[in-house]
Amino acid sequence: MSLLVTGTIAIDTIQTPTDKAEGVLGGSCAYFAAAASFQSPVRVVAAVGGDWPSGHRAILESFDNVCLGGLEERPGAKTFAWGARYLENLNQRETLFTKLGVLDEDPPPVPDRYLDSEYVFLANTHPKVQTQFLSHFPKRKLVVADTVDLWINVARPELLGVLKQVDGLILNDSEAVQMTEITNAVTAARRLMEHGPTFVVVKKGEHGAVLVHREGVATIPAFPAEQHQIVDPTGAGDAFAGGMMGHIASVGMTNFFTIQSAMAWGTVTASFAIETFGLLRLTQITRRDIDERLRQFQAFARVG
Amino acid sequence: MSLLVTGTIAIDTIQTPTDKAEGVLGGSCAYFAAAASFQSPVRVVAAVGGDWPSGHRAILESFDNVCLGGLEERPGAKTFAWGARYLENLNQRETLFTKLGVLDEDPPPVPDRYLDSEYVFLANTHPKVQTQFLSHFPKRKLVVADTVDLWINVARPELLGVLKQVDGLILNDSEAVQMTEITNAVTAARRLMEHGPTFVVVKKGEHGAVLVHREGVATIPAFPAEQHQIVDPTGAGDAFAGGMMGHIASVGMTNFFTIQSAMAWGTVTASFAIETFGLLRLTQITRRDIDERLRQFQAFARVG
Repeated sequence: MSLLVTGTIAIDTIQTPTDKAEGVLGGSCAYFAAAASFQSPVRVVAAVGGDWPSGHRAILESFDNVCLGGLEERPGAKTFAWGARYLENLNQRETLFTKLGVLDEDPPPVPDRYLDSEYVFLANTHPKVQTQFLSHFPKRKLVVADTVDLWINVARPELLGVLKQVDGLILNDSEAVQMTEITNAVTAARRLMEHGPTFVVVKKGEHGAVLVHREGVATIPAFPAEQHQIVDPTGAGDAFAGGMMGHIASVGMTNFFTIQSAMAWGTVTASFAIETFGLLRLTQITRRDIDERLRQFQAFARVG
Repeated sequence: MSLLVTGTIAIDTIQTPTDKAEGVLGGSCAYFAAAASFQSPVRVVAAVGGDWPSGHRAILESFDNVCLGGLEERPGAKTFAWGARYLENLNQRETLFTKLGVLDEDPPPVPDRYLDSEYVFLANTHPKVQTQFLSHFPKRKLVVADTVDLWINVARPELLGVLKQVDGLILNDSEAVQMTEITNAVTAARRLMEHGPTFVVVKKGEHGAVLVHREGVATIPAFPAEQHQIVDPTGAGDAFAGGMMGHIASVGMTNFFTIQSAMAWGTVTASFAIETFGLLRLTQITRRDIDERLRQFQAFARVG
């Protein structure tokens, strides 16, 4: 039942068409861990710099189930910083700046007491680092990796190497097209599975997600939010993955039906995350709110 | 339980990235009626020219529940003809030609015995014509109109007039944006409802559809087809509407839950329609195939 995530902790600066937030807690690890923590304890392995605000640590510590034993503070280094601007429809964004900081150094070590982790999520980072991490977890039952366009461009062979070793891959629809040149999400996922994974989840943002698994296919819409409820889509994909992996770890099963169910938990958790900048909304809710929204979502998404 | 549709019968010429079909039966009325007929008898009111191939009539007549009593053949006129080419991903298309033919003349008359129709679908045509049609049906219980970008551009005031008189509006996501300048489907639908309709269905093609109704919200993914199963997306929206309205008419209820269920029937019927050019695939299947695919879809789209 032990879930571990490794990825980035970031200091984000976000502009939306109507608002702006500077210096908020972000990064794949932060969103994933907060989201997963409603379902399961989650171990974080990540690095930050000496400039990391104590307020950001306090936010992560406010989640009961987030375990920061693998969070390394490097006094002489800078925390990864990322700035982005969303275009009018909130589905497209442009990166304004990327300051790698600690990401340009050695990856953080995995504490000995985390080496028994069974459920492992490799959030977006260099595929070479993802592969190295994997070797730390001999008891792994389910490993899922995320990736982004950058690695498809500059490290495709290494990324294909990752695919050989993971059980699941999760990526955006545009990235699935980029990797396979196939626009159909189901067919693109099958092509990716030829490289190794048992399943692929294609995230489609406001249009939901598709799961293709050796044992079946699943499709799920996004939570039908109103425009005013969507403040900042940053981290939605990581929160989705967190809710998903948190559910899988809590159930302790890795079959198709569990992963299909997990997508619903991921969807509703992500629907909260986008209601504010950073993790603010996730700090305000409890498991009961997520359960309640899942019931609402089941009613919204009833078929036939 | 009487369902009536008025719209176009067309002679279509379609190019896809891998194939081409010339002179196939198409048009909103044809796709709608064929799709609806698996659920309910459906009355067709439309006009064709003297050039209409007898083979096209035979195709429509092969559907047990399609009633052609309102199909007017005008020997001196030409059938509406339309040519289009799909781009690489099948989600974008460009119109190659549009020959209005009979569409440029008076609309077809409604036979007296159709005047008691209770469920009426106004497929895409000039909003002025849609309004005129409505006055024929004093016993109408549910009227749903479709529209396209052309009328939003050239006849917006008349289209707003249609919205005042119908129960439901169905349109593509791009058209919802065009009408409201709101990219969020739920919020755009609510804005459109301010003009009169009780509900709005926003169709999103491969991403499914969203229903916003005074009594609730529903969201449904598309059927997760493989790339090779999608031959020609033409008519998918009309087949969706046909399956939807056919279900509503067969149930004889117009509440939110019925319309939500109806979207699932629309989705699976449309998923067959796109497997071939024209109506071919719909001529090959029975109600049992649709029931079977609905069950499959329910499994694919299970939430939580």
